[in-house]
Amino acid sequence: MATAEMNPLSISGSTLLYPVIGYPVGQVKAPMLYNQLFAAIGIDAVVVPLEIAPADFPRVGPALFAVSNVRGAMVTIPHKPACVDFLDAASAAVKAAGACNAIVKRADGTLFGDLFDGIGFVSGLKRAGVEPKGMRCLVVGSGGVGAAIAVALGEAGAASVGVSDINTDSAARLAGRLTSFGVCREAFVATNDPAGYDLLVNATPLGLKESDPLPVPVERLAPGTVVADVIMKIDFTPLLLAARERGCTIHMGREMFIEMAPLYLSLFGYDGYTSDGIRKLVGYKD
Amino acid sequence: MATAEMNPLSISGSTLLYPVIGYPVGQVKAPMLYNQLFAAIGIDAVVVPLEIAPADFPRVGPALFAVSNVRGAMVTIPHKPACVDFLDAASAAVKAAGACNAIVKRADGTLFGDLFDGIGFVSGLKRAGVEPKGMRCLVVGSGGVGAAIAVALGEAGAASVGVSDINTDSAARLAGRLTSFGVCREAFVATNDPAGYDLLVNATPLGLKESDPLPVPVERLAPGTVVADVIMKIDFTPLLLAARERGCTIHMGREMFIEMAPLYLSLFGYDGYTSDGIRKLVGYKD
Repeated sequence: MATAEMNPLSISGSTLLYPVIGYPVGQVKAPMLYNQLFAAIGIDAVVVPLEIAPADFPRVGPALFAVSNVRGAMVTIPHKPACVDFLDAASAAVKAAGACNAIVKRADGTLFGDLFDGIGFVSGLKRAGVEPKGMRCLVVGSGGVGAAIAVALGEAGAASVGVSDINTDSAARLAGRLTSFGVCREAFVATNDPAGYDLLVNATPLGLKESDPLPVPVERLAPGTVVADVIMKIDFTPLLLAARERGCTIHMGREMFIEMAPLYLSLFGYDGYTSDGIRKLVGYKD
Repeated sequence: MATAEMNPLSISGSTLLYPVIGYPVGQVKAPMLYNQLFAAIGIDAVVVPLEIAPADFPRVGPALFAVSNVRGAMVTIPHKPACVDFLDAASAAVKAAGACNAIVKRADGTLFGDLFDGIGFVSGLKRAGVEPKGMRCLVVGSGGVGAAIAVALGEAGAASVGVSDINTDSAARLAGRLTSFGVCREAFVATNDPAGYDLLVNATPLGLKESDPLPVPVERLAPGTVVADVIMKIDFTPLLLAARERGCTIHMGREMFIEMAPLYLSLFGYDGYTSDGIRKLVGYKD
């Protein structure tokens, strides 16, 4: 795509920065997608990775936003919960999930945070023809992504959201927030047994390494269950392969990533883009 | 040059950052040169502008280097003196000039600073066939760049270096440092009268704006004097035009910029490049 090519001269003194902040950052895919998008659209901005160790984050994270041409950021593992501490204002999703993956510096210099994993995930489901309204959902993993997805499923009208985590305290805290913020009709701590749910979401890193165990006992999956994975690095994770084998509908992690693009663009002040339009711009293959 | 084209996909999670830090940064040219160079050479790194207000710099400047993939920086106006405060070690030029424009994070995480304006300037002179050794030099302007050039001229064996500044205290401090650090055979506070010198260097911003007065009374320039300007934005400044008119040899500011490239690359760990090689790589026209 000729329009998406970027001349190195296109980074100049006037270029705005939207860093993607994490630890580590070697695996992040945001620079590839967003820099291609910025070039295609004609936005003088660049996404660069910033790797900040957790111990340094409370000092370095807020300092970054004092850089005039840093106008916002994408936040990834493990800083999604910690960045909430220095926001001036936050969306309901951030408050309910206790995590933030999108920060914008507003005109007055204050920082507003949002959380797009969940809404991006639900948007991807709907695009694939899966309507979460009324569904009984099991979210395995109660970290930043799991929390975001649980909140979004609740907000999308899920009948119930079970939260499973080997850290049961973490699962209990999330289930408590889902209930107390009124985002879920019914939220509870669950085991990782997927029987009896309409939708299973793996929001753990299990599946990234070949030696990983499956996040749930797949023999308990009923055909017809929708099984989604948040892992982006691998399209067909062992969980998704096993689920497909059992006659389940499967949903890949990368859908969530591309569905977040119009949300990030809009937060950063670039309105009017749809995920389908963005798919076309970057030549994304379904 | 096909080799110097940069695909936006070339910024990934593993890309190293060498920011150029200033206030403002709209005018900086480093991203254009260095990103083209990195692409041509095949270095997975990017130069991005970072605009930091002076009041924020003492807090934000050092914090940046806690970002793991920020491996060094270029420092420009007005932060060259202030960044000296947070260096762990510095070159003799930094100590003598009290300014730094190049920072590298060493393997142990400590910061080493150097100052390349002066050595870049002298290197450009020599490339143009001007040998500063034994010359009587007048440097007008005793800020970061003027200080760097005065030090480098002294180290290159200038017979004497006069320093002129409307801020005579600043000129006196610089002349004092040039003497006390032993970098100049003879250093003194001078007026801006260019008569009696072999080399005149404008190291003030005068000439950037059309309404600017000339930095020196040009009618006092003897033919044969070498007249150099540090202004990069304009090749032929009013001073250089007037000097050429009077039969002086003139030397443009942009030479200093390109001559610093091999110094920056080497500081950042990319050895073996010459300024002539770099000129070819980026298609630089003399």
